Amino acid sequence: MTADERGVTPQGEDFSAWYNELVLKAELVDRGPVRGTMVIRPYGYRLWELLQSDLDRRIKETGHQNAYFPLLIPQSYLQREAEHVEGFAPELAVVTHAGGKLLEEPLVVRPTSETVIGEYMAKWISSHRDLPMLLNQWANVVRWELRPRMFLRTTEFLWQEGHTAHADEADAMRETTLALDEIYVRTARELAAMPVVQGEKTPGERFAGAVRTLTIEAMMRDGRALQAGTSHYMGTNFARAFGIQYTGVDGERSYAHTTSWGMSTRIIGGVIMTHGDDKGLVLPPRLAPYQVVIVPVGRDGGGAEVITAAVALARRLADAGIRAHVDSRPQLSPGFKFNDWELRGVPLRLELGPRDLAAGTAVLACRLGGAKEPVLRDGAPARLADELTAFQDLLLARATAFRDSHTVTTDEWDDFTAAVAVGWARALHCGTQDCEHEIKAATGATARCIPREADQESGTCIRCGLPAAYGKRVIFGRAY
Amino acid sequence: MTADERGVTPQGEDFSAWYNELVLKAELVDRGPVRGTMVIRPYGYRLWELLQSDLDRRIKETGHQNAYFPLLIPQSYLQREAEHVEGFAPELAVVTHAGGKLLEEPLVVRPTSETVIGEYMAKWISSHRDLPMLLNQWANVVRWELRPRMFLRTTEFLWQEGHTAHADEADAMRETTLALDEIYVRTARELAAMPVVQGEKTPGERFAGAVRTLTIEAMMRDGRALQAGTSHYMGTNFARAFGIQYTGVDGERSYAHTTSWGMSTRIIGGVIMTHGDDKGLVLPPRLAPYQVVIVPVGRDGGGAEVITAAVALARRLADAGIRAHVDSRPQLSPGFKFNDWELRGVPLRLELGPRDLAAGTAVLACRLGGAKEPVLRDGAPARLADELTAFQDLLLARATAFRDSHTVTTDEWDDFTAAVAVGWARALHCGTQDCEHEIKAATGATARCIPREADQESGTCIRCGLPAAYGKRVIFGRAY
Repeated sequence: MTADERGVTPQGEDFSAWYNELVLKAELVDRGPVRGTMVIRPYGYRLWELLQSDLDRRIKETGHQNAYFPLLIPQSYLQREAEHVEGFAPELAVVTHAGGKLLEEPLVVRPTSETVIGEYMAKWISSHRDLPMLLNQWANVVRWELRPRMFLRTTEFLWQEGHTAHADEADAMRETTLALDEIYVRTARELAAMPVVQGEKTPGERFAGAVRTLTIEAMMRDGRALQAGTSHYMGTNFARAFGIQYTGVDGERSYAHTTSWGMSTRIIGGVIMTHGDDKGLVLPPRLAPYQVVIVPVGRDGGGAEVITAAVALARRLADAGIRAHVDSRPQLSPGFKFNDWELRGVPLRLELGPRDLAAGTAVLACRLGGAKEPVLRDGAPARLADELTAFQDLLLARATAFRDSHTVTTDEWDDFTAAVAVGWARALHCGTQDCEHEIKAATGATARCIPREADQESGTCIRCGLPAAYGKRVIFGRAY
Repeated sequence: MTADERGVTPQGEDFSAWYNELVLKAELVDRGPVRGTMVIRPYGYRLWELLQSDLDRRIKETGHQNAYFPLLIPQSYLQREAEHVEGFAPELAVVTHAGGKLLEEPLVVRPTSETVIGEYMAKWISSHRDLPMLLNQWANVVRWELRPRMFLRTTEFLWQEGHTAHADEADAMRETTLALDEIYVRTARELAAMPVVQGEKTPGERFAGAVRTLTIEAMMRDGRALQAGTSHYMGTNFARAFGIQYTGVDGERSYAHTTSWGMSTRIIGGVIMTHGDDKGLVLPPRLAPYQVVIVPVGRDGGGAEVITAAVALARRLADAGIRAHVDSRPQLSPGFKFNDWELRGVPLRLELGPRDLAAGTAVLACRLGGAKEPVLRDGAPARLADELTAFQDLLLARATAFRDSHTVTTDEWDDFTAAVAVGWARALHCGTQDCEHEIKAATGATARCIPREADQESGTCIRCGLPAAYGKRVIFGRAY
């Protein structure tokens, strides 16, 4: 493969083609054998592992325990909660045969686990002393997608799903908010450098079976929104469907209030579309499998001495907690390697050649551009740690500026349609689903969320002119 | 629930009942909604996480990269390797409907991933420079079990599966052996304190599609064997079935030689049956979710000051890297808690009462028995770290002594049958599968492995009198 063949369609020409080519060429994924599935390759999986370890730490620090529930769920479980089954029925994969026989009851491959976990919470919870019950599961789920897209909508994806039970609404809503704020917002901002907006879904956009759905929404570089994590308050819907009851201090039996919340491999698609450019991926250092790549330069890869010095430098960086990789592939030119690692989004590159050996230097190049610069190898660990921090901060600042410059506050329909063609609009809305449908039909945009941080405002609906609901503006945008 | 209800059937009375009751009462698992499935509860899942993180570290340190392949595999993939499909066909769960429609081709829920990974290795490997390809996957798999048993044989289980491709047999066999020795043997001995025997399976006990299968076998406290991890050399069987070919330095096209190796949640069953006793679990400290439990004692749980001191002590232990837990449940007596944590196998218990406050002491009790002993809280972190190391070592030594005292080297059939009724027999065997079947029919015992460490010996088969194969003794035992 030549360097040219590794290039991708420019974002401005066809954002969708840019994305589809990039995830394959950067070796994040390959297309699975079944339509809509993906193979996550080592470079893509390492990204997921780094996200996962941060999420898992936050999940545990906030008092949750991991558990594991079965993949195959009796079909009848899903039917117990009316809205839930209505929402998921069209997406189910169904096992009808096993062990060479037709099963008496078909089993669905879990699309999410509220039902099976509800069944066990009902068994495990009997007293107020058993509450809150704070569980989390790392799992694969299957939802048959009509319009699949790598990471964003795949027939099978990996995720964590938190499931908790509480004595009352207040405690359950505290949990619903905590999962969003202390887990998802922090991981999105601090790790993925994605300036997500926190808010609540309008009734039409809620999770199937939820009373309230909180969300974090991110803006991609084509102006579209990506729902990057959601947290649901279920009220007593699932508790009633599965019999999750407890005896209170007063001896009374009550239904528990449950929540669920999930973040998935989808967020990797968000990272790609938040930071990537025409040269390829741009990875936030805290998520980058390799934060620094060291490329030997000079005739014949600089020779054995250069390789030895590169390996020694990588080890010093590793000792300082920096993920460094030496690209010693003998058959490839430095130029090819530079392009390759730019495509793969490595934040920093160090070039090391014969002349650097005696001088104790290496040449530093940044994925975001700017002049190359010689650095002393002795000072490299400290210097690169600073550069990586600055790189991480810059990505968040850059994405925040992009989001803000592509968000329009408006009360005019024409401005609204222009805004959602390239970004987001903040507008008043009447709160009816019919009107949301009309907006979607006219512009492709949906209500992304009622943002938590927003001034109290009243007025009339941007579309239909009826009095506005929610007491604040809603964010509209076209979404992935 | 009273303390009595938490007790389990003694091992000597009914080992199987002891196990089945214990896994439920210690809250490791619950029975799943579908026959043969299990719910892994937080205490059981934490054990798995601790195993997993050790395994994952060793897998990465030996040069492997994690990836993720799809759960649902086209049925036709399994049919490409004749022995493989024959071995797995009876155990498959099959998705026939998805997205509300009958699928054109049924999909099997992966029972293992050689086939789908073979398909992608064929795509990704073209040159000798792409070899070796060293992949690993953490995943759930489904095999329809007729005689399910928690952890040991469940319809769905969690595991890692390593899959690698190499230029030739020598490199592939080096990998097959490395996975066994550097990953499985070490995790089993060092973490699980299980003195496993390394060896090779006889032809009749090989993995479906393998040329050679290496195994680690452990002895349970009822004398039965548990296969705790296997590593397979596939020759070019899967490479031919899926077209995994590479161009050598000389320009010739050759088939790759592949391996696969797996360790699963089954090993948790092994830990339970290697170390447990009539009071319940006995957990090796390196695997114990809680290594030390602190129980406040005295009237009303000792009062707030005792709880405060217990929490402070737990924090000091945590700072020293010890996993400590304060059992402050107000409604339960200290006696109940002692029994509860003994059932759950926590290695060490510290009792802390009002009189300990001023004295700066706590009372140390060990899960393995012996006199309780006062210890100074200031010295507790160092003292308990030593105790935990000694506990870990003792478990391995105890299990080794048990295994050796229940293994008989014999050339007499009567001694053989007596030996495999309560443990293992080391005997010469002719190497034919018919004779292995006869031995199984007569005694219930199977050839567990041809142990790697064994003297060269020749003679005649313990059963049929034909000349012995393998040049050494085979270990026979009844197996889980």
